[in-house]
Amino acid sequence: MLAPPLRQQSLGAGRVSQPPCRRRTPNPNPFLGLPPFLAFRQQLGLFLLFLDLAFLGSVTMLLHRAVIPHLRQACRLKSAPSRLYIRACSTDDSLQPQCPSLAFSGDNSSTGGWKVMGTLLGLGAVLAYHDHRCRATQESPHIYTREEVRSHSSPETRIWVTLGCEVFDVTEFVDLHPGGPSKLMLAAGGPLEPFWALYAVHNQPHVREMLAQYKIGELSPEDKAPSTLKTSDPYIDDPVRHPALKVNSQRPFNAEPPPELLTENYITPNPIFFTRNHLPVPNLDPETYRLHVVGPPGGQSLCLSLDDLYKFPKHEITVTLQCAGNRRSEMTQFKEVRGLEWNIGAISTARWAGARLCDVLAKAGHQLCETEAHVCFEGLDSDPTGTAYGASIPLARAMDPEAEVLLAYEMNGQPLPRDHGFPVRVVVPGVVGARHVKWLGKVSVEPEESYSHWQRRDYKGFSPSVDWDTVDFDSAPSIQELPVQSAITEPKDGETVQSGEVTIKGYAWSGGGRAVVRVDVSLDGGLTWHVAELDGEEQRPRKAWAWRLWQLQAPVPAGRKELNIVCKAVDDSYNVQPDTVAPIWNLRGVLSNAWHHVHVHVAP
Amino acid sequence: MLAPPLRQQSLGAGRVSQPPCRRRTPNPNPFLGLPPFLAFRQQLGLFLLFLDLAFLGSVTMLLHRAVIPHLRQACRLKSAPSRLYIRACSTDDSLQPQCPSLAFSGDNSSTGGWKVMGTLLGLGAVLAYHDHRCRATQESPHIYTREEVRSHSSPETRIWVTLGCEVFDVTEFVDLHPGGPSKLMLAAGGPLEPFWALYAVHNQPHVREMLAQYKIGELSPEDKAPSTLKTSDPYIDDPVRHPALKVNSQRPFNAEPPPELLTENYITPNPIFFTRNHLPVPNLDPETYRLHVVGPPGGQSLCLSLDDLYKFPKHEITVTLQCAGNRRSEMTQFKEVRGLEWNIGAISTARWAGARLCDVLAKAGHQLCETEAHVCFEGLDSDPTGTAYGASIPLARAMDPEAEVLLAYEMNGQPLPRDHGFPVRVVVPGVVGARHVKWLGKVSVEPEESYSHWQRRDYKGFSPSVDWDTVDFDSAPSIQELPVQSAITEPKDGETVQSGEVTIKGYAWSGGGRAVVRVDVSLDGGLTWHVAELDGEEQRPRKAWAWRLWQLQAPVPAGRKELNIVCKAVDDSYNVQPDTVAPIWNLRGVLSNAWHHVHVHVAP
Repeated sequence: MLAPPLRQQSLGAGRVSQPPCRRRTPNPNPFLGLPPFLAFRQQLGLFLLFLDLAFLGSVTMLLHRAVIPHLRQACRLKSAPSRLYIRACSTDDSLQPQCPSLAFSGDNSSTGGWKVMGTLLGLGAVLAYHDHRCRATQESPHIYTREEVRSHSSPETRIWVTLGCEVFDVTEFVDLHPGGPSKLMLAAGGPLEPFWALYAVHNQPHVREMLAQYKIGELSPEDKAPSTLKTSDPYIDDPVRHPALKVNSQRPFNAEPPPELLTENYITPNPIFFTRNHLPVPNLDPETYRLHVVGPPGGQSLCLSLDDLYKFPKHEITVTLQCAGNRRSEMTQFKEVRGLEWNIGAISTARWAGARLCDVLAKAGHQLCETEAHVCFEGLDSDPTGTAYGASIPLARAMDPEAEVLLAYEMNGQPLPRDHGFPVRVVVPGVVGARHVKWLGKVSVEPEESYSHWQRRDYKGFSPSVDWDTVDFDSAPSIQELPVQSAITEPKDGETVQSGEVTIKGYAWSGGGRAVVRVDVSLDGGLTWHVAELDGEEQRPRKAWAWRLWQLQAPVPAGRKELNIVCKAVDDSYNVQPDTVAPIWNLRGVLSNAWHHVHVHVAP
Repeated sequence: MLAPPLRQQSLGAGRVSQPPCRRRTPNPNPFLGLPPFLAFRQQLGLFLLFLDLAFLGSVTMLLHRAVIPHLRQACRLKSAPSRLYIRACSTDDSLQPQCPSLAFSGDNSSTGGWKVMGTLLGLGAVLAYHDHRCRATQESPHIYTREEVRSHSSPETRIWVTLGCEVFDVTEFVDLHPGGPSKLMLAAGGPLEPFWALYAVHNQPHVREMLAQYKIGELSPEDKAPSTLKTSDPYIDDPVRHPALKVNSQRPFNAEPPPELLTENYITPNPIFFTRNHLPVPNLDPETYRLHVVGPPGGQSLCLSLDDLYKFPKHEITVTLQCAGNRRSEMTQFKEVRGLEWNIGAISTARWAGARLCDVLAKAGHQLCETEAHVCFEGLDSDPTGTAYGASIPLARAMDPEAEVLLAYEMNGQPLPRDHGFPVRVVVPGVVGARHVKWLGKVSVEPEESYSHWQRRDYKGFSPSVDWDTVDFDSAPSIQELPVQSAITEPKDGETVQSGEVTIKGYAWSGGGRAVVRVDVSLDGGLTWHVAELDGEEQRPRKAWAWRLWQLQAPVPAGRKELNIVCKAVDDSYNVQPDTVAPIWNLRGVLSNAWHHVHVHVAP
């Protein structure tokens, strides 16, 4: 891997939160003459640049929480909590172009042993960047026209992009872009803003810092006008959401109901059903909506209106959906992962109605074949290139009437809400949420799994020993059926319960139609167990698509000041949840199904 | 529950190993005037009497290991290791009738914290028995004729049985018999020997001790002739077995291959395939063999010869069978359970061929129905009443061609060996071994599960909090699909490995056709992990019926004197094995699938 080019000085990363490197201070630069390992750290740092939406949340926190305080201390910065300042090195404010940037705030409240590791890992990258930056600011910026930038849009001519008034050569980074080179190439020769507007999480200080390593100059004054690409907010049409939802990401919108509401009802009300969007919510007209179903070779394709879909037999089932990242926050507590910080609420249950996928596929002439095949789904939500959200499931599941895969147009007796796929989404009972493609536009049968990023480069599980340097996404199967899961929704962690008797409530669910047959609850961290009472519908064997709510009234052992409440579920294959999170930790923080713990105080 | 009757004295339990209570010694009887809790302990003790075959192994060990040393000490017995003597109380050898009894030997090597609990639980029962026994010996025996005994064969007349020359009134015990009252009623008014010959594990000292509580007298001298019932060894026709097998029980025969042979071959050779019999092996003539398939109401039943069965399309699949009790010995190490002490070898893999059950059921006119139904299987192995081994599976699985349930007549290209069901057995891929009924005699479709003991009162999982006083067998589903499993076959526990590099081998499997997608191996007890290499056939999705063998070459960390090697598997539903055995402990010791540990020394 080549070292990143460094042709120009200047910095241009900060608007409010990042006062620029402007003036040499009496402090000697503490980072000059760093040992050789920083060359590696620097390349590691590059890898983080342009991280796409799904990967960024927790890394940001890691860097911010773990690295910045150390950096600040090392540089003897004036303390400015909740704001990121990098002003340690010998620079001058007057060199700072007034380019737009994002303010950034966070908190430093997180502590723990992993902080140290995070610090060590992250520090190298930041120091390396810092080294470049300080040297860069010693030269005057090279000025380019937008026309010149536009001519650098391929590896042969090198790949340039702009952000605000700054110009960057990202040739060496393209292959490292976690979202794939193709996504970054969309911006080649032009501005990044339209893409960052879509993947808003790019607007993080550490991303901008790392981008700055690739800075080669600035746009000429006459070219500083806005780019010709549409830069308006692609999320502006997103629907209004219920205020009870706990928002993990606004753009795209990702939110979960709070634990205290989650198990209030066996059927989750639509407005608080957890939402996991990957892109802006499309605004589709039910009158003109068409579902394209590709026929088999030599057969006919279907182009179905909503009315056409209504003509298939209406099938109605109660199904629990769970995001693969549910309970990721517990995994993060052990060791940082990349992904949205879901608590225990990335799971909800609804009554879905629609046409059975097997009926629609049969109508298009598809049959179950001997060779392995997959049904690929494409959403009508898409990025600026028109690349849609996509996923696939095995044809055997799709064609099995007993698997009850739906093209759903109703959720709890209502048309689908926009956040949940209006007018049509896939519902794949017993399978991870990521395959329940929303705003469904196209269905096809292919010999291979969907080539979508979300099928092949995400939503897979790995050994705790695998990290971002060693991960081979092709080595693991895409998540389909999920493992057995349960969590405590009442009482809440840190709550004070009355002595005497405590009521404990929660949910339990398993993938693949496997029924939950038992939930064990402990008040002493797992030494002794009680059997909880299962509520909710008992479902048909092999078709237990929905969760069981459960509760337990148990006496609080006399004299206890604290309780370590634990739950674990058993499904009808007698699979159980693992005891602890560390051995199932994985770099994406998916499949977090260790015993759920809630620590409470007992009122004296 | 009424207290057991105690009408006569005498003892008559010992031949060689149990010198009778014979003579008052200067020692005062230390058990007279025991506190009231012993009344309860005594009833608990009664519950253990007549325990059927499957339940007895580990209880014997518990009583022997934990209770006897304490009892011996309390009574100030002359030490006699490996032999059970109870001679503490004031008795006289001259009162001892010379009735046949079984010698008993064991070892006292087991230690551990649970011994104490075992001691406390067991001691009460033994002390209570002891109390009775000592009082009984103070009177002279009542003498009964066999004709008198025969007239006591119902609850109304009271229920008497004989063993050797002794007569027992077991009226109060009948409902407590763990094998069910009906089994014990078979012996009502007659001798126990023919039944104990079948369930040989009754021949345990503690069973005889508890039976002694019900002694009411002895047979008249002229009636001491052998009973008219056939008392010959029902296991005399059992086949000759391979000497490599590790035998857990001879009658019925239960044995497993040693770990070092288990994963030598992907396909287990027939002679060392693990064997789990519940009854004597029937000796069936393939010429006269008939399989009775009950037709639907109004339909026709089938009576199929082997040649008839050969006419169905021959279907061949590789399937791993696992006993629910595999790895029970690890559960026992945590806390005693009732069942055979399987190590890691109650699992094997074969290539099975036969007719598909769905084809045979269809031929008999059966169809998949909307209501829940079950296919019940009966073996031609039976107890003295003609009650056959039985089990059932859901009709939905039986009728699903994709589930590939077989009526198998070939195992690895050979006719089934007698120990494995000759001429026909059921093979239910992905499902616990107990449903793969051998020596198949009858197939029927019923609205309910099989009423067999093994379907309804065994092979079920319970919470660790459930014990024999609180267990409700109806509250748990019968085990069908098994959870994900793995174990280390090389190196063996306690072995010394060379420094440098260690090779670790083992197997991994999951129920329900779920493929094993990864095996993690740790050398440090689970702190860090390596990903093992999977060998063996990669099977079709949803039809991964057979295990994966795996291996890992890993460097031995320098300076380590010992390794705590651990394995854990992940299946394609991303279910994992639990970390530890305690939270999945259950009173029958089934479903033991916690991480497998092997501790080895490193050569200096």
